[in-house]
Amino acid sequence: MSIDTTPAADAARAGSTALLTDHYELTMLEAALRSGAAHRRSVFEVFARRLPNGRRYGVVAGTGRFLDALECFRFTPADLDRLRSRGIFDADTLEWLAAYRFSGDIWGYAEGDAYFPGSPLLVVESTFAEGVILETLALSILNHDSAIAAAASRMTAAADGRPCIEMGSRRTHEQAAVAAARAAYLAGFDATSNLEAGRSFGVPTAGTAAHAFTLLHDTEREAFQAQVDCLGSGTTLLVDTYDVPQAVELAVDVAGTELGAVRLDSGDLLQQAREVRDQLDALGATQTRIVVTSDLDEYAIAALQAGPVDSYGVGTSLVTGSGAPTAGLVYKLVARENGSGELIGVAKKSQDKLSVGGRKYALRRLGADDVADAELIGIGEPPEVGRVSAGVRTSARDLLVPLVRRGEVVWTGTLGDARARHAASMAELPVQAAQLSRGEPVISTIYQGRQD
Amino acid sequence: MSIDTTPAADAARAGSTALLTDHYELTMLEAALRSGAAHRRSVFEVFARRLPNGRRYGVVAGTGRFLDALECFRFTPADLDRLRSRGIFDADTLEWLAAYRFSGDIWGYAEGDAYFPGSPLLVVESTFAEGVILETLALSILNHDSAIAAAASRMTAAADGRPCIEMGSRRTHEQAAVAAARAAYLAGFDATSNLEAGRSFGVPTAGTAAHAFTLLHDTEREAFQAQVDCLGSGTTLLVDTYDVPQAVELAVDVAGTELGAVRLDSGDLLQQAREVRDQLDALGATQTRIVVTSDLDEYAIAALQAGPVDSYGVGTSLVTGSGAPTAGLVYKLVARENGSGELIGVAKKSQDKLSVGGRKYALRRLGADDVADAELIGIGEPPEVGRVSAGVRTSARDLLVPLVRRGEVVWTGTLGDARARHAASMAELPVQAAQLSRGEPVISTIYQGRQD
Repeated sequence: MSIDTTPAADAARAGSTALLTDHYELTMLEAALRSGAAHRRSVFEVFARRLPNGRRYGVVAGTGRFLDALECFRFTPADLDRLRSRGIFDADTLEWLAAYRFSGDIWGYAEGDAYFPGSPLLVVESTFAEGVILETLALSILNHDSAIAAAASRMTAAADGRPCIEMGSRRTHEQAAVAAARAAYLAGFDATSNLEAGRSFGVPTAGTAAHAFTLLHDTEREAFQAQVDCLGSGTTLLVDTYDVPQAVELAVDVAGTELGAVRLDSGDLLQQAREVRDQLDALGATQTRIVVTSDLDEYAIAALQAGPVDSYGVGTSLVTGSGAPTAGLVYKLVARENGSGELIGVAKKSQDKLSVGGRKYALRRLGADDVADAELIGIGEPPEVGRVSAGVRTSARDLLVPLVRRGEVVWTGTLGDARARHAASMAELPVQAAQLSRGEPVISTIYQGRQD
Repeated sequence: MSIDTTPAADAARAGSTALLTDHYELTMLEAALRSGAAHRRSVFEVFARRLPNGRRYGVVAGTGRFLDALECFRFTPADLDRLRSRGIFDADTLEWLAAYRFSGDIWGYAEGDAYFPGSPLLVVESTFAEGVILETLALSILNHDSAIAAAASRMTAAADGRPCIEMGSRRTHEQAAVAAARAAYLAGFDATSNLEAGRSFGVPTAGTAAHAFTLLHDTEREAFQAQVDCLGSGTTLLVDTYDVPQAVELAVDVAGTELGAVRLDSGDLLQQAREVRDQLDALGATQTRIVVTSDLDEYAIAALQAGPVDSYGVGTSLVTGSGAPTAGLVYKLVARENGSGELIGVAKKSQDKLSVGGRKYALRRLGADDVADAELIGIGEPPEVGRVSAGVRTSARDLLVPLVRRGEVVWTGTLGDARARHAASMAELPVQAAQLSRGEPVISTIYQGRQD
């Protein structure tokens, strides 16, 4: 049978995520079904070997999207027909895929939490077959969303309470843009330009006008007047199309001193913000805010904190992860059943890609003043939580929460919960976490001995 | 009315791309409808102010995807209900959006062609209203796909005929991965790991096994035997899970000298490739190929050209644009109707973001031996093509092709055509285009005087 590419077929399979998968997951599946090893109980983990780019911490994002995608991970008849028509996969494999429903357990870090090298962000326990084919989907979502959230988190830390707006949709893939808006909101951004992110995830949307709107009208006054007539004097007028001081004067003349904000999108933003503030104040528009945009990143924001800037619009740098467009997370088999039915740790022995075998626990140890001081990772039962050592009371927070039990999604956390979790996790980290300079992770990962 | 988020509603609107749009496009639309300027005939252009990262050329990609997305750019009743429920946009605007069908003309560079700073990759001629709301969608698609294609093009140039396989799905957003596989194929890659790219775009897919497959089995021999039993001796065995020389010996022992290939995924790839080649040859497996993967980019490929490597698998670096994850394209109003019905050029006058006003022509001038020597861009009628100047015969190729006429997509180019266009355009560029070092664009963009 040929590939069905009618609009109706596309609509019917629109929700399916099963083909967002690497070819080799299915060849491995086929060979493992043939050898019989496919049904061995296995543990896969998602973790980062290192943080990208000298970052001090990572931010877990995408877990909610992954769970939604997992529920849609079904091979449709059209998908199977296509795979069959290519003659690559045998009948047993296709039959197995047709019946595929994930029936195992998944734990993970709560979305929004901080993570460090080795932190098990996702732990998938199932048969080898059921777990192996989720590799690509899980990594695609977590690698993208965590990369954006990590960049966003540094930006909101730098902005130190001044509102940040995500406006990078145009600089990334059209669907990645929607996920990026979600990840940025999770990490403290206040709004997005992306309408679909508003629809899909309830992220507040915002925006007023571009230079094209000014250029469309015969004069800047006509453009400002048209915008104020339509959107009210509380709107944000873009004042750098021609001459900034003239535009600021014109803006207040048109909108009055109740003008909501002016936006600067080019030039020396710090110097201009100071001049514009003085000018607005002199014109009596003391409540009019100043919004800056134009290739901002966390470093530019930090520098602009010295100026009278009221909010930041961030585009390219945010949606491309500010130098680290992927989180570099990997999905590794860390334990599997042996011939005697015991779960044993397994690890690749290549020189530069070591992983630590076995199913893990993960705790964030909190020292004096409840400041995080270590990520404790071990195999087996976790150590006792809450003790006094050398006169210092330490406690620890269990980082793994149940996400899926016997194939059913049990996690009910919302995007709002993830945003709150991010804020709480940031508050718990040492103050050095907010430093923008490259360095080591702000807390160490300590692998503890086997506890059994 | 509340947001309809039932699966049925999702399926019904799955094809709609209209909300992949920035909020401010709609506020501009609303204000322009109110002022009456919305209906002014306008020309928008997509172009790059500069090439990212010291690149010598850019590669146009995403045009085909944009045209598909344009045909699905419809505001569904559910979309409109959502916008209405938020109370942001007035009834006239919502009514206009409900009836929206693009009815203008679009020209553009043929997908796969090279481009340079200022090249008008897309020219949209319509009313202001019809054109302005396409900004985000056009840029998202072209910025992403062109960034990937540019990186892929450098990689295939470095590989100089050795096959390249795209395998970066796990390191980028799950839908961006599909588009990345398409863009890489366009720029000369031979296959992708991404099954959905096979389904959606017919890109050949490939893959065999990961380390997890070896670790699943009790011994490496059992794993290799299982793979060969299932996939035949022509398969590719991954030989770096434990010890490479032992694995190579084992691989030939299990599969025989007709073993298809071995894959190296860690360590010093050049040195290992040489040792493995010698070992394979000594074992009589002289036809067995060597595939290398592991954080390759164009520079690593160039270095590996000195070794006996038969093909390259490229992941992270490709899907993140090898240091330039977005092409930095902008969408600017360059001309619009004035009060007398004449089309006049318009341009923003801010200091660091100059654009050149007016609707353009674009020609690639070819000098001796039909090697490209300049990008000629001007306003009005193009100059005569094909002339003899100072004894040298020059010709020129018209770069803008019709994509949409009166709202109907007229471009019928396939992905295969784009791949052929890329190959032909590369062959036409000066040899310096293939240099990996940072530098100036390999040909200059020459803005010509008004011709009317």
